[in-house]
Amino acid sequence: MRLAELSGASGVSTATIKYYLREGLLPPGRQINATTAEYDAEHLRRLRLVRAMIQVGGLPVTTVREVLGHVDDDSLGRTIRLGAALWALPQVPEPDAEDEYVRAARRETDELLRALGWSNARLLTTVSPAYRSLVVAVAALRRLGHDWDAELLLPYARLMHRAAELDLDFVERRESEAERIETAVLGAILVDPMLQALHRLAQEEESARRYGFE
Amino acid sequence: MRLAELSGASGVSTATIKYYLREGLLPPGRQINATTAEYDAEHLRRLRLVRAMIQVGGLPVTTVREVLGHVDDDSLGRTIRLGAALWALPQVPEPDAEDEYVRAARRETDELLRALGWSNARLLTTVSPAYRSLVVAVAALRRLGHDWDAELLLPYARLMHRAAELDLDFVERRESEAERIETAVLGAILVDPMLQALHRLAQEEESARRYGFE
Repeated sequence: MRLAELSGASGVSTATIKYYLREGLLPPGRQINATTAEYDAEHLRRLRLVRAMIQVGGLPVTTVREVLGHVDDDSLGRTIRLGAALWALPQVPEPDAEDEYVRAARRETDELLRALGWSNARLLTTVSPAYRSLVVAVAALRRLGHDWDAELLLPYARLMHRAAELDLDFVERRESEAERIETAVLGAILVDPMLQALHRLAQEEESARRYGFE
Repeated sequence: MRLAELSGASGVSTATIKYYLREGLLPPGRQINATTAEYDAEHLRRLRLVRAMIQVGGLPVTTVREVLGHVDDDSLGRTIRLGAALWALPQVPEPDAEDEYVRAARRETDELLRALGWSNARLLTTVSPAYRSLVVAVAALRRLGHDWDAELLLPYARLMHRAAELDLDFVERRESEAERIETAVLGAILVDPMLQALHRLAQEEESARRYGFE
């Protein structure tokens, strides 16, 4: 398809598509003559991914380029490639390793991973931003002086493991490896807000079931 | 306890506590004489809640005051009081009701609630920000042209319902109604980032189980 058709199919203006091409977020089309290039379904898919990252995820162009660099790096295994793509997304900053609450939170989080039997996740604690996020959140609870025990997270972690299985089942249904990695990145941007909304809705439903509306 | 002790127990400076008192985020202590007031465990608890909303949740003082107004309004039933407190938290703006994607997303979301049997949540669709968030997220997916079916959300919604049951079980273990409402607000601010981190960690764990680290 031509640029105008790519624009029609994606709902993204030709000016914006040209900008993405210049910035390297979209691979160049196949040049037919000096002024015309041809685009295919892969361009459309990539355009939708870029759009999701920028419009829904609010990511800057440099971050999108970095994520795509990992998405396209087929020299890596799938776990690492997925990780590299997701880890390029904005993350919480490294917490202060000397802080007593952070150290306690790290111990508790490690204990939680052990109790869950997440032996692979335990190998990634030095590099995984998800691990870091969890430590930061646990440290915040502790610092606020809240009554709290990391064991309370066990049943939630099991639910999230079930969600992760659903995620990967969905990703595996995609035909090409490129599509699988792209779907995983999209999921990270689009699915978490949905899960959060579903969680709140479920709280409203369950609260009304238990206590009514009075 | 005196102001200095409240500061020591909470880790919040006396200047900040005085500011919260002036802003009405903390009820005044019991005045012992012209210059000294006495604070109790309830002040400490409220101070930790305010701290969580401001420091972890990043909420402005006016929003905190609004949330606390609902937390303290014991003329309301528990479902409505909980809702009112949570609904005062920052939410996604109302989507454009005339937009075709928004209308389609609303239909799909209603269908999902029906399929789930969430009849109480269906009564709240005009007021619930969680419902609005879900509609906005579904509309974004649709607008981006992604292959997608709201039925895919069914198993995730069931997992989130299970999480909501755990949430309310935890809330119910608190002794007073005031503590229960406060715990629910804290949960909304502190638990969601943890769930998201656990979800990512579980994806890493499951991905490594299925595909190894190669």
